[in-house]
Parts: sequence; structure tokens; C-alpha cells
Amino acid sequence: MPEVVFSVDQSKSMREQAVPGHNRWHPDVPLAAMVRPGQEFRVECREWTDAQLGNNDSANDVRDVDLNLTHMLSGPIGVEGAEPGDLLIVDLLDLGPVPQETGEVPGQGWGYTGVFAKANGGGFLTDYFPDAYKAIWDFHGQQCTSRHLPGIRYTGITHPGLMGTAPSADLLAKWNRREQALIDTDPNRVPPLGLPPTESGALAGQADGSEAQRIAREGARTVPARENGGNQDIKNFTRGSRVFFPVFVKDAKLSMGDLHFSQGDGEITFCGAIEMGGFIDLHVDLIKGGMDKFGITTNPVFMPGNVEPRYSEFLSFSGISVDHDTDTNHYMDATVAYRRACLNGVEYLKKWGYTGEQAYLLLGSAPIEGRISGIVDIPNACCTLYVPAAIFDFDVRPTAAGPAREDRGQCAVTS
Amino acid sequence: MPEVVFSVDQSKSMREQAVPGHNRWHPDVPLAAMVRPGQEFRVECREWTDAQLGNNDSANDVRDVDLNLTHMLSGPIGVEGAEPGDLLIVDLLDLGPVPQETGEVPGQGWGYTGVFAKANGGGFLTDYFPDAYKAIWDFHGQQCTSRHLPGIRYTGITHPGLMGTAPSADLLAKWNRREQALIDTDPNRVPPLGLPPTESGALAGQADGSEAQRIAREGARTVPARENGGNQDIKNFTRGSRVFFPVFVKDAKLSMGDLHFSQGDGEITFCGAIEMGGFIDLHVDLIKGGMDKFGITTNPVFMPGNVEPRYSEFLSFSGISVDHDTDTNHYMDATVAYRRACLNGVEYLKKWGYTGEQAYLLLGSAPIEGRISGIVDIPNACCTLYVPAAIFDFDVRPTAAGPAREDRGQCAVTS
Amino acid sequence: MPEVVFSVDQSKSMREQAVPGHNRWHPDVPLAAMVRPGQEFRVECREWTDAQLGNNDSANDVRDVDLNLTHMLSGPIGVEGAEPGDLLIVDLLDLGPVPQETGEVPGQGWGYTGVFAKANGGGFLTDYFPDAYKAIWDFHGQQCTSRHLPGIRYTGITHPGLMGTAPSADLLAKWNRREQALIDTDPNRVPPLGLPPTESGALAGQADGSEAQRIAREGARTVPARENGGNQDIKNFTRGSRVFFPVFVKDAKLSMGDLHFSQGDGEITFCGAIEMGGFIDLHVDLIKGGMDKFGITTNPVFMPGNVEPRYSEFLSFSGISVDHDTDTNHYMDATVAYRRACLNGVEYLKKWGYTGEQAYLLLGSAPIEGRISGIVDIPNACCTLYVPAAIFDFDVRPTAAGPAREDRGQCAVTS
Amino acid sequence: MPEVVFSVDQSKSMREQAVPGHNRWHPDVPLAAMVRPGQEFRVECREWTDAQLGNNDSANDVRDVDLNLTHMLSGPIGVEGAEPGDLLIVDLLDLGPVPQETGEVPGQGWGYTGVFAKANGGGFLTDYFPDAYKAIWDFHGQQCTSRHLPGIRYTGITHPGLMGTAPSADLLAKWNRREQALIDTDPNRVPPLGLPPTESGALAGQADGSEAQRIAREGARTVPARENGGNQDIKNFTRGSRVFFPVFVKDAKLSMGDLHFSQGDGEITFCGAIEMGGFIDLHVDLIKGGMDKFGITTNPVFMPGNVEPRYSEFLSFSGISVDHDTDTNHYMDATVAYRRACLNGVEYLKKWGYTGEQAYLLLGSAPIEGRISGIVDIPNACCTLYVPAAIFDFDVRPTAAGPAREDRGQCAVTS
Repeated sequence: MPEVVFSVDQSKSMREQAVPGHNRWHPDVPLAAMVRPGQEFRVECREWTDAQLGNNDSANDVRDVDLNLTHMLSGPIGVEGAEPGDLLIVDLLDLGPVPQETGEVPGQGWGYTGVFAKANGGGFLTDYFPDAYKAIWDFHGQQCTSRHLPGIRYTGITHPGLMGTAPSADLLAKWNRREQALIDTDPNRVPPLGLPPTESGALAGQADGSEAQRIAREGARTVPARENGGNQDIKNFTRGSRVFFPVFVKDAKLSMGDLHFSQGDGEITFCGAIEMGGFIDLHVDLIKGGMDKFGITTNPVFMPGNVEPRYSEFLSFSGISVDHDTDTNHYMDATVAYRRACLNGVEYLKKWGYTGEQAYLLLGSAPIEGRISGIVDIPNACCTLYVPAAIFDFDVRPTAAGPAREDRGQCAVTS
Repeated sequence: MPEVVFSVDQSKSMREQAVPGHNRWHPDVPLAAMVRPGQEFRVECREWTDAQLGNNDSANDVRDVDLNLTHMLSGPIGVEGAEPGDLLIVDLLDLGPVPQETGEVPGQGWGYTGVFAKANGGGFLTDYFPDAYKAIWDFHGQQCTSRHLPGIRYTGITHPGLMGTAPSADLLAKWNRREQALIDTDPNRVPPLGLPPTESGALAGQADGSEAQRIAREGARTVPARENGGNQDIKNFTRGSRVFFPVFVKDAKLSMGDLHFSQGDGEITFCGAIEMGGFIDLHVDLIKGGMDKFGITTNPVFMPGNVEPRYSEFLSFSGISVDHDTDTNHYMDATVAYRRACLNGVEYLKKWGYTGEQAYLLLGSAPIEGRISGIVDIPNACCTLYVPAAIFDFDVRPTAAGPAREDRGQCAVTS
Repeated sequence: MPEVVFSVDQSKSMREQAVPGHNRWHPDVPLAAMVRPGQEFRVECREWTDAQLGNNDSANDVRDVDLNLTHMLSGPIGVEGAEPGDLLIVDLLDLGPVPQETGEVPGQGWGYTGVFAKANGGGFLTDYFPDAYKAIWDFHGQQCTSRHLPGIRYTGITHPGLMGTAPSADLLAKWNRREQALIDTDPNRVPPLGLPPTESGALAGQADGSEAQRIAREGARTVPARENGGNQDIKNFTRGSRVFFPVFVKDAKLSMGDLHFSQGDGEITFCGAIEMGGFIDLHVDLIKGGMDKFGITTNPVFMPGNVEPRYSEFLSFSGISVDHDTDTNHYMDATVAYRRACLNGVEYLKKWGYTGEQAYLLLGSAPIEGRISGIVDIPNACCTLYVPAAIFDFDVRPTAAGPAREDRGQCAVTS
Repeated sequence: MPEVVFSVDQSKSMREQAVPGHNRWHPDVPLAAMVRPGQEFRVECREWTDAQLGNNDSANDVRDVDLNLTHMLSGPIGVEGAEPGDLLIVDLLDLGPVPQETGEVPGQGWGYTGVFAKANGGGFLTDYFPDAYKAIWDFHGQQCTSRHLPGIRYTGITHPGLMGTAPSADLLAKWNRREQALIDTDPNRVPPLGLPPTESGALAGQADGSEAQRIAREGARTVPARENGGNQDIKNFTRGSRVFFPVFVKDAKLSMGDLHFSQGDGEITFCGAIEMGGFIDLHVDLIKGGMDKFGITTNPVFMPGNVEPRYSEFLSFSGISVDHDTDTNHYMDATVAYRRACLNGVEYLKKWGYTGEQAYLLLGSAPIEGRISGIVDIPNACCTLYVPAAIFDFDVRPTAAGPAREDRGQCAVTS
């Protein structure tokens, strides 16, 4: 086992760790550890909300979650010799839930999928499912099941939802400027268009006093993906993957968290992955001057590994950029098209006895693929949602006999 | 070989065939042939423009193409017993270029990829590549190469870009209404927001006289994907696939065309697939009342086959819904995010010596995957473009040594 | 379509073709055609017995087949510049049954699998199935079904069972010497240990008179795989594959035939593949002096392509080198171990209602994998037989409910 | 993490554990633990020799290993309700090296591959490599490298080489009888034809005194695979797999060990896998009366999981049942054919600068596939060895340029 350079005691909040992590992007969060190019090391992680949610049958904790605390990240890890303009190579050697433990904290043998209420962030189908919902998943090696989703068992593509390098001060300023400009176009929208910096709930690692306050005041929220990677939620970023991150500050300052036991493309329920704490084993290296050499400036590049769970039979639902409820045509809008593909998948699953909420939770967490199939055929974008047939313990394909409808219970709801 | 129920003489235009096809969606295009549930049959197809483009080194024919002639479809094929509300099962037994022939028509041993000029339809990156470009591809069994893209060889995922059932009169009226409403929001846009019916260039199969004129006047253009399937451009809809189409009219009236030797997700260059004429072998069956049974109303459902070319190593470029040129943040816009992912891929390939145009043509036609990775992390959608490493005859991965830059020529341009 | 350099009229025997092929390995079979390194070309093939078997419900034709006529090969094709010591690169661009035709000859829309009678060659389980049996398969694109094997449908891994370069005179002499030495150890065995040259039924291409007689007298039978490749029956040698053949004579003299729509590893029923005539599209090139450069002397090397049908769920039956009928232990004998694995698979399938003969025919023709799992654990070799679950239209996995036994008819038998 | 029902302190020998395991098959080895159908549990394992080998650069420990101590198994685990005639379902939820530890014992961050000397067991190519050799492998997540095999890095298909149920007294007697009969045919052979029971080194779990002596005297050696599974060395028996074992005694008495970080088909170097201690997480269930229901009597059946490392490009070396050194033809001998395929692979790798010993060690441990391609084409069996191209950090394919020969060092040898 490689050396643990960032350790977490799962019985304590991130704030109470010997070396606490952080939940804002800022170049001045102090280094939590240093590693060398070529080194292998382990990083331990808290679940993204710092374990605000429990292994129970109520969605009240999803409804009431404090999102200002998220995402609780481990790091920053400095890489010796890294300078702005380099590419940081990160190999994902291994990752998983909290090893050797069972307990109350997500990642200790279980995880959860949540649909956030419209009033608290919402999700991709929030206009159709405005309330909070939850499903608890039990881990069985690389497979999982849920008492809230009977008839389902699948192998997770386990990955960190969030990993990235620290922004430079300039880049951070740019983020805050452009996101505020967007928010300003509709400042009272629910859910909001974006999340500006907020001191509430902020954690700045080992910084304290006025420095911590400044970081909290300036630091970018961790919700979106940005030029540094961040919350990309790429479900295929699993064991064996290699990522090339742009380096914007001295030492690169790599941070990570938001571990997912599994997630579908798009993570459509917002915290739609199966959320958990756990560990990541990494190897890092540098390509000096790599950003310019390879033209990689506004994004990471990654190479998937070769141990992803293999699914061979899919049901694929297409969707187009038309709102069929109002019969309104949107122009080449892949977001609308993927939403329709998801809704089409939900309708299909309801015919087999799942509630819409259950179907929504399933599509958020199972290893579904979301593809942009047609993006030039005016006026309709066409997206496709691929659902692996093997995740069901019944034959889910359409046949002349019609669907085998059963009472399949319900997910956790609010009270 | 199954019986040919729709035959094409590739030396003649679709208009001159013994039984001509059609290029508009309309319930009253007369049946070209009838088949029974359970039957296997072959349909022959013209290339989508009716072969307006040639195997040469100029993109003038792309620039000057008459889009009112497209897509030249084969059909409609009636299916005995099909009624509105049924699901039509279509199995893609086999498909390919024009068998046993070499010649001047796309599909006779070769195909082409085109970038349309902004003034004539444009493509996904039309603001970056406003002119017309072309690459000619030679077929070698299931693989292809292009004299306009040296260093590239790959196996195509051959598929029909377009297949669908006829709309009912009501559905057709709905299409025309909602698309006109969209066009009306910016009627003079270049490229336009949508294409309304036009009599120019219309072909209504075996209808003639005033009936043909009426069909031309009312018939929906074939460009976008819609509830009936249509131009979905799903690159994985290849040999061994099964599709379930909603049936909206008596006999279902299945039509198809726009064969692609290969295409990347999104078909980003507009006619970005490798376009060709050829053949499709099909098997059909019915699920009576299947639309209601399975909740399939606004879209087809499909199941990919098991003979897709297998790629195991990818370079994945992510993109977010930020216009980095103007530093403008778009809200959860997957279209913008995928465009950035494509631009990021283009920049990377330019470092190896390809021109931007070549890279664009490559991403349109090669078996790339376009994924919606994050669609809920406000305000940034995150999309990913997966480029198979094996399509290059050099090692395209980032290394400390930097890219092996070479003069890789240029694609066909306009004169 | 590439140029046809060896054409076959399927209405005539190989002997009656304008340019006939051959059915013996000999360096002096005259060239049927010449190609250049870098050239793509098509070769047409007769089914391996020269179409002695019919699309009917009797196995009498299997019982009575004249094996002296086999394998009817197309070629030899000369490759310009090829010299002994080179490696001949052969790319399999495409292959398939007889295009555009239906008819009476295997490959015209159908093929067959046969179990040979013990008295006429036998098969791998000949002591258990000493009589002749047959199943007819109908082709549906790349998939096939059989009226003699209800409940089965799969995608074939289509390939040439036999391809090879001509032996030198020295190599041919070596073959004849060592095989005769083996035969001499038990000359009256049924089935025989090997097949020495025989003039009966021999075909020497365009040679005639005394030259043809000499070739017939000296020419090695085509049954086994040897240093030149030959009847390797490698089921994965399908579209997209590349082979490196040792060159033993000037011009290499490449010959091929014995096309299989599908075959299981081992081709256990002897003509256990789905046999057919058809076509192969090839590309050839040379590595000058490649045999020494790469240490390839007694065997071809091949690289599988990337369009093999993909199966993801298998039932794997293991077998060890023990004859359980007599409780006799064989030492590290992979042949015995694989036979037991096959018998174990047959017993399993019988529980579902197939006859032993049907199960045997299925394992010979379906895309099963035969693996050497343990070959050093004295005294028992361990082999495994992987049967893809997806070839059955029922759930073939073991469950507490027991197998769904049905009357599944019978294959074609002798009368 | 599931409950540990069999725990191992890696700092102690198996003999010194609180509950020791066993190294002989015998129905009377006392139960080490009981589990229920449906239960998930963890079993910890010692490396198969009980850690006689070290992380060093000498093969002396391989040469001098005491094989009477092998295989040190964990168990027997009783399954409540299991009776003779049942099938025991075993799901492999997870497995891996010793978690959270680095150290001196194989499995603590490293493992080894050994070629045994001819005088001490030998290997598959012992006539070509009669001495002892070793390579040490370092683990990096699911990947591994070796200082003794530069240029190699691959993802292991981690699995237990050995798992099985206890034989009944009758079955045990049958084993001893038939194996002794084999040994008696050449009792002085080196290496021996088989290994009879021996008291030397025997460990009988918690049995002691005369009972332990009786078990040692009667108990079958664990080397070969037999009807109960045992040392099958099936490399694909990895995470996510399900096995169906015949039950021969009350409580089934499941035992396991011989964990392999990776292994090639055949495990050709004898302890050719990458040997290690570690853990296995299991789930068990029963099919009552399953042996008769499914005709499973002399073998386990298994279903591979869907997380095997995926390789897409292979070099495949074929071999036939001819001893080319003496030009002797063996009749349909798959063992000889696979040996030739292995030797052909070794020769090829030597051209790139590896020593024969290194190549042999590589083929034993890397995820190569060994296939029985042709087993009916008299007189030559044809086997194929598939070597994944991706395990090399150079392009290992044959090209006109010839192999990139380099000094690649040497493995550990004896002194």
C-alpha cells in the first residue's frame, strides 16, 4: 500500500481532521502535503457533504442538506517542481470506499443517491421531480444493490467526481467575474444560475484567521467543472485512468474528493452518483511546458483505463431538443435533448412498476451512457441514453408480451 | 441474400429510378413496397445528396450542393398489419456500400466527409470554420483511409444516418407548426434556425401531379430527428442493432437512407459522416399496441448490436459551457460544452501537424464518442469527446517528448 | 470492390472452373494469379468438400462424403518479390458467404455443420457420437439460426478455416516423412492417425498430365495445420485480422478456402464449423527477411481484428485429463482435458432438452472459446470451455429453479 | 467490509495461526468456520508456499522450495445446509493482495513469478529451461511492473488459483487410486508423473494427534485440478465471477488459496502466476440437488465477471503437435501444440532483447490467452497463444523495420 499523504478519520468532520481539507478553490489554500514526480501515494476522502446524510429510509436529510459545506476536498497536494504551464500527469492506481470498515458514514459499506429538492439546488429533471428523494445502496465488492430499488444489481464504475489543480489568482478572478455576470442575468432564479463565493461554511484547509476569511470570501465554489478540472463528474474516470491536468500555480496543488461508487453520465439527480467517502491511490508525474506543447489550456485530457465494467447489451432512448409538454422547439439544444432522453427512459421504466422517482434515481447512479448523437441537424439536437440491460434481474427488453409489471416499492421520501 | 424490395440503379438519380424514393416526410407518399412481419428484405439507397459530390480534390461541390434535394430516401416500405400505436421492430441484419461495384458514385468503393459553408447550412464549428472543406475516403473492407488525412486508418461503424416511420397528418402539422414558431424568432439568421417545407427539389415517390405538389408543399424536411426517428445520426446503429419505432400511420411506412460508412457522435461537420450509397438488409416485426405498453411515444428505442468495432484506448477531451473566446458563461448548456470539447480536440491535433480543417473533418467522421458527463453542476455542463488512439498510425498520447509534429498536408478546399 | 483474382462459378465444381484451384499442398501447383505487395484483391472460394452436401434433413451426405476431394482451395496466388525467408503480411479486409445469391450450394444463404462418422474421419467425441449428424444453418446478415437447433441464434465470427503458403520441396518431404512415421505406429487405426498423400480425388490446379499425377502422388493432404499455416481453424481469424506467414517458395504461393460462417474453438465436430463457399478480400505486403528478423519459422503469427462479435457472459465448463468413464488418469493431457470439458458442456445442455448430438453440433459451430487453463499442475491438465450465454433465447444459467427442459427436436441423422 | 471468517496474521506461518488452514484434501479436516447461504464474508490467505520466497534478486529460494508444504489453504468453510448432490454457488465479490500493508511477505505490495527447476517439479518448458528463475513484481493498484522485466506493465486479472469443496471419502480414495496407477507407469520419472499423499509437511487444520496423522497419510495433494475444482488456475476467475461447485460432503467444506495477482493461461512456469497472499470476499448460496438437475458431476462450472482487464490487440502465436526439434509428429496432442505455441512466443520475444528465461516468466504471468484452436484435423492439434500488445511499453508488432532489440537485463537466477 502506498504511503498515505492525506489521512481522514471518518469518525470526525473534515474540519476536525489533524490536517483538514478545503471546500473552495483558491491558490492560497496551504499545502497539506508534498509529493515528488514518480511517487505513488494514497489520499483519503470524506463523502462530499462531510457526511450529512444517513443510512435510513427518509429523504429529510437530502432535503435539509447544507450545500455551503460542499464539496469537502482532500488536499491540496503539492507536486515538487510543478510550475504554471506544465501538465500534471495523474494515474488513478486504485480507489474505493473506506477500507476495512463498516459504519454510519457513507463509504463504510454503503452509499446513497439523492435527488435534491428544487428549493435546494434541484436536479436535471427538477421540474418533473421537485421534491427530495433518496436511495441507499449496499456494497458487495464492486457490485451494489439498494433496498429502495429492488430488482437492480450492477457493478459500479467507481471514480472521484472531483479532482483538479488550484487556479491562479487571475484564473480565479476570471471565474468569479464570468459566473457573477451569468447570475446577474436572473439573480432571483430558483434554482440559481450559479453559486458565488460565500463565507458561510467555507473551509480553507490549514489557513486560519484573516487568511482563512479572505480565502472564504474569494474562493470559487466547487460545484462546476472548470479549466482546472474540478467537479467534472466523468463516470469513466476510474481505476487505471490517466489524467493530464493544466498547472496554474507553483506545485500544482492537486485536490480531490466527491468519490462515487457509481454514476450515470450526467449525474442527472444532482447528487445522483452513489456518494461515499473512501480512498484514492495515485501516481503523479510532470510534462514540463506541456500546456503549450499539446495545446491543452482550458481543460484536462484523460485516458480511461481498461478495467471498466463491461456491459454489452443496452436499451438506448433517444431524445430531441423539443419540449413535448408544450410542443416547443429549441434550437440545437443538447441539454433539452438529453433531458427528453432521460424522461423517455423514466417513462419506460415506470411501465415495469418503478415509480418515476425510483427510475430517476436509477438513471442517476447506474452506469448509463449519455451520448450526443446528432448536433448539426437543424433544429433538433439528438441525444441518446444507453441503459445496460444487465443491471436488471428481469428481461427489460421490449417484447410482444408487454412489460412484466410488478410492485417495486418506493425510494426514501421526505416526511 | 434477402429479396430486394427497393432497388436502386446507381447510375441514375433517385428521381429516375423505376420506383423513385422521396425526400420529404409526409403520410401520403405512396408505398414503394409491402413486407410482412417476420420478413427479411434488402433496401438499396442513394447517397443522401443524390450523388452531387465527386471523388476529387476540390470542395467546390460541397460549397455548391443543393440541400433542397436531401435526404434522398428509399421507401416507404409498408408493413402488413401495422397500425398507429404499434411498435415496429426493425433488425439491421447487414448494411454496407454498393456491393460489387467501383465507380463515380459515393458508395462505389469510396465516400466523402464534408464541412458545409456557413452560407449553406454550416456545421457545429461554423464560426471557426466558415468555409467548405472535403475529405475523400477509400474503403478497405470495413476499414478506410483518406488521401486528405494521412496517418489515419480506422474501422467504420457503418450505419444508416436516417430511418423512420411516416408521420400522421396530425404529427406532421405539429412539426411544421413548432418549427415555424422557432424560425419566426429569427427568420433571417444565417445559418437558419430551421428549414420549412419547400417545393423546390421535393420528390414524393410515385405520387405525381397535384398530389406530388401537395406533398412537396406540406412535407417536412428530413434534416432533423423527430418523434418518428428520422435523421437521428446515431453512429452505433449498425449491424446487429434492433430498433423499436413508433407507428403513426397504417402500414407504418418505413423509409431510410443517408448511409454512413463511419461517423463520430454528433456528426459535427454537418455531413461529417463518410457519406455513401449502398444497401441495408432488414428484418421487421410488430409489437401490437407497443407504444402504450412500453410508454414509447415521442422517440424510437434501439438496442446496439455486438459487432461494433472495439476500441480500447481513448484520448478524452472535456469541455464546459463557457465560451473561452469571450469568457462568457452559459448556463448548463451541453451544446456549448460539447463544442468546447471538440475545439479542444482540434487544438490538440493541430500540434501534431494537422490543419484545423483536417482535424475537424476527422472528428466528424471517425468513431469518436461524445458524452454528456456532467449536466447538473451549476452553471457548467461538462461534455467529453473520446478519440480512439488506434485510429492514428503514430502514438498520439501526450508524453514528455512532446508531439511528433509533421507536415500532414491538407484536405480538399474550395477554389 | 477489389479486383477478383480468383473467381469461382458456384454452379460448377472446382475442377470445372476456368482456372481450377487445388486440394493438395505442393510447391509445383502452378500459380493461378499474381498480385503485388500493397495490392487489394478478392478471392472466391468453394465450400471445402466442393459442395457434396445439401440443404436437407438427412445426414446421409455427411456419412458418405468423399474426403479425398478436400479441402478445395483457391489459389495459389503469387506475390511479386516474395522469397523464402520473407514474412508475407495478409490483411483480411472482408469475407463472407457467396454475395448476392441464394441457392443450393453451401454459402448461398445457408451453411451446415456436420459430425463425421467414426468410420469416415470421426470427430473429437467420436467415441461418444460414432455416427453422422448434420445441422443446417440459415444466414441473417452476420447472424444465423438452424431449424435443427431451436432456441439458438448467434453472430458468427466468419473466417477462413484454411490459409497458407506453399511448402518448399524440402518442407513437403519432411511433412510426408514425419506423418508417415506416425501412421506407421498404428497403420490400421480407425479413424486413422494421419492421411498420407493419395492420388484419388487430387486436384493440382492448372497442372495436367504427368505433372498433375506427380503433384497428386507427392502432395500433402490439407487436413492438418502445419508450418505454413494451412488448416489452422482459428475461429478469431476474421475481418480486420492481420497474419504473418512464413514464405518457403518463390512468390509465396498463397492458397485459401474452407470458409466458416462460424466455428467454436477446436471445431470439435470435425466439420464442426458452419461450412460455406464465399469470398475473401485481402491486402498483402512483405517483410523481407522477416522469418529470421522475428524468429518466426515454424508457424504463422496473427493479430485479431477489432470487429469480432462481442460476448460478455459465458458459462465455463472445466475438464481435467482424467477419463471419468474408466477413471483413468492421463498425464498433463490437454486433449483429454478439453474433451472432458466438451462432454461436461454436452451433459449440461442435455438437461435443457437438447439431444447429445444437437449439443455436440452446437459446441462445434457456436463461438465458444476453448482455453488451456492449467498445464503444469501434475498430473492433471485443466481446460475450460466458454459458452456464450447470449446465443440461447432462454436463460441458460444455473438457478435454484432447475433447467427449463423442453422438447427441442433433433438434428439431421442418417437413414 | 464483510466479516472475516478466516483470518491470517501474515507475520506467522499458516501452521502458527490461531485457526490454521490445511494443505491436503480430506473430508475430515475440521471446519474452520461456518457460514449461511446468502452470507457475505472475507477469507484471508497466505501465499501458496507459506511464504518461503523473498523479495530479492536470487532464484535460490525457488530452487530450494519445499513443495510438501503447498498449497497452504484457508478453510474449510462450512455452508449451513449443504449436502452431497447440491451445487454450491460462490460469488467472488472482491479479492486482492494483503490490504493496507507493505512488508516482506508475498502479497504485501509485491509478488513473484518462479520457474521451478526440473529436479523440483519443473514447468511446462522444463526441457528447455531446466533451472530455477524468478521475477519480482511490484504492485501499483491493479497494475504491476518488475525490475526483472523492464518494458513491461500490465493490469493483473487477480484470482485465486485454487478453490474447491472437500472430497468425500470415496472420491478421495478414487483420486489416490487413479493417480497412483499413473505414477506406477513410470515411478522414477523426473519430474514425477504425480504426487502421492505424503505425511511430510502436511497440515490438517485444527486436527491433531492421530487424526492429523491419518489425514496427512490419506489426504490428496493439492497440486492438480480435480472434480472438486481445486487448483484449476483459471486466470479469468476474478472479481465478479460466480462458480458452481459440486458438493461431496455435508457442509460442503470450501477451501481456497494460491492467490495470483496475475497469471497467463496454463500458468506455464509452474508457479508462473504472480504469487501472493491476500484476501477474498465471497458470497455463497446453494442449489439443492443441483448436481443432478444440471448434470454437473465431475467439474465446477463458472461464469466470468465483467471487470476483467480489457485487451484489444494481441499477437497470436500458433503451435502444432509436432516436436520440431526432432521432427516428430504427435497425434492430436494439444499439450505439445500449446508448448510449441509458447516456444514460438519465446523465440519472438528474444528478438527484442529479452532472455529466454525472461520471456518464459512473462508468458507465465501476463494475461495471455491459450486457446485450443483446432483439435480434429489429424494428426495435428493447433493451439494459439495470444499475447496482449499493450503490456509492452514499445510497439511489439512485426514491421518491415525489424524488432527494436535492446539489452533488457535478466531475471533472478540461482547462484
